[in-house]
Amino acid sequence: MGILVVGSVALDSVATPFGAVKEVLGGSATYFSAAASFFAPVSLVAVVGEDFPSEDLSFLRNRSVDLRGLQQARGKTFRWQGEYGYDLNQAKTIETQLNVFAEFLPRIPEAYREEKIVFLANIDPDLQREVLEQVKDPQFVAADTMNYWIEGKPDSLKRTLGAVDVLIVNDAEVRQLAKEPNLVKAARQILAWGPNSLVVKRGEYGALMFCNEGCFAAPAYPLEAVCDPTGAGDSFAGGFMGYLANTLNFSETNIRKAVIMGSVMASFNVEDFSLNRLKSLTYSEIEARYREFRRLSHFEDL
Amino acid sequence: MGILVVGSVALDSVATPFGAVKEVLGGSATYFSAAASFFAPVSLVAVVGEDFPSEDLSFLRNRSVDLRGLQQARGKTFRWQGEYGYDLNQAKTIETQLNVFAEFLPRIPEAYREEKIVFLANIDPDLQREVLEQVKDPQFVAADTMNYWIEGKPDSLKRTLGAVDVLIVNDAEVRQLAKEPNLVKAARQILAWGPNSLVVKRGEYGALMFCNEGCFAAPAYPLEAVCDPTGAGDSFAGGFMGYLANTLNFSETNIRKAVIMGSVMASFNVEDFSLNRLKSLTYSEIEARYREFRRLSHFEDL
Repeated sequence: MGILVVGSVALDSVATPFGAVKEVLGGSATYFSAAASFFAPVSLVAVVGEDFPSEDLSFLRNRSVDLRGLQQARGKTFRWQGEYGYDLNQAKTIETQLNVFAEFLPRIPEAYREEKIVFLANIDPDLQREVLEQVKDPQFVAADTMNYWIEGKPDSLKRTLGAVDVLIVNDAEVRQLAKEPNLVKAARQILAWGPNSLVVKRGEYGALMFCNEGCFAAPAYPLEAVCDPTGAGDSFAGGFMGYLANTLNFSETNIRKAVIMGSVMASFNVEDFSLNRLKSLTYSEIEARYREFRRLSHFEDL
Repeated sequence: MGILVVGSVALDSVATPFGAVKEVLGGSATYFSAAASFFAPVSLVAVVGEDFPSEDLSFLRNRSVDLRGLQQARGKTFRWQGEYGYDLNQAKTIETQLNVFAEFLPRIPEAYREEKIVFLANIDPDLQREVLEQVKDPQFVAADTMNYWIEGKPDSLKRTLGAVDVLIVNDAEVRQLAKEPNLVKAARQILAWGPNSLVVKRGEYGALMFCNEGCFAAPAYPLEAVCDPTGAGDSFAGGFMGYLANTLNFSETNIRKAVIMGSVMASFNVEDFSLNRLKSLTYSEIEARYREFRRLSHFEDL
């Protein structure tokens, strides 16, 4: 089954201890779509400016991502500039130019409105709900958010949480959203606001998934060559939602597998700048890494 | 089979967001012995001062820890004062009084010299080797260390590494010791210096075990009530070594189980101040939490 994603398409300039790139393809919807497209058809809703190099999207087009929902607006494309030190868990933002993204009003093309599976990347929670209202019969919805909305629009965000099945955020955001330093208590609070599951991304430490039945801890893949963590969270969400859209099984057992598939896609994505690693990736590499995750975390009963 | 442990016995004063305690039983050898004693007989070598309240050891005595190697020296007992904020991963040391620990020369009682399994807690690496030389036929040796020795005695530490089977340290120490920010590369460097396995403790993020065959990622138990992280690392080492001494199987498969048993003991220890939680702990609680770790990290094949 297909996935509808709403988020950003950006031009990123990134410096890490391992190199630097300038105005390369980035954005939450871009990373999400590329990762999810290995598992399911993706329909993208986002906005770019007049300056956007259309060849930058050829990779997504080749991966059959539907770009009819990609608006082109007057003005410049959203730009983000950031850098990372050796602690690759922490991005330092040098500059954010919202440009056309500041006025982004997601319009869902008629052809997309039948989609059942929706990912609301990190945008204004008011817009996240407007998107959902345009979808006829959403059956499985996940959302991301960030500190900016947690601080600025907490009530709107909670209304959005009431309409989603899964929230996918990092651990600092979980603590901030619930105003609770203990992650387990914070997770329980967030589940009480609506989602059936909460996925907590912890970068090089892996991910935790909380649901009413309990908790699942997924390791991160210990990589010798982490090049650029940009987009890791959105590639994770892409692998996670892609796997669920492909299998159409929303049991806890299958959601655990989806968390691993998210971790697999994130682990590939950070091996190179921008979406470069995903360009050469094959499905058999994905399956092989999933098996590596099994070996990585397996231990026997007493 | 029994375990010989050399390390510190201390009086700790600790403040966390959940309370504070003053001059309570602490020290690496204490936490280690208490945790290991659930699995195997433990022989302790350490030093206390004349001021040491002997009733503080009644718990260890009740758990059949052999205290014949506990020296009493003229002067005051080692004291540590520290505090933690909501980020319980980071202890802030307020004061360290080495006292009698500054002149500690571990003498291994004749009755201990036949021990085959040895844990060298965090002491001067010169002393760690002197201990090993007093043991007749050590067959499985693990060691801990810290930034102080990594900076101050790197060459001595490397000689110690050449004589141990397992090094158990935290991730910052791994990176510092190998002078390499990437954990996988750093681990490979440390294994090249001697140990067959490296266990990397990552606090609330769990543990990683590296060996020549590959890598194992153990989750941490997501606790709703972390009270005091003091001694978590040494309780981990106690559960790890205790399990290995009990099973006498040093295969990778069994070392993975030992890593989980270390995580189990650390997860109990942090639930209360000092060694209080271990005082009421039962073996069936330990087994139940091991099974919880299985549920926590299990996911199915594709």
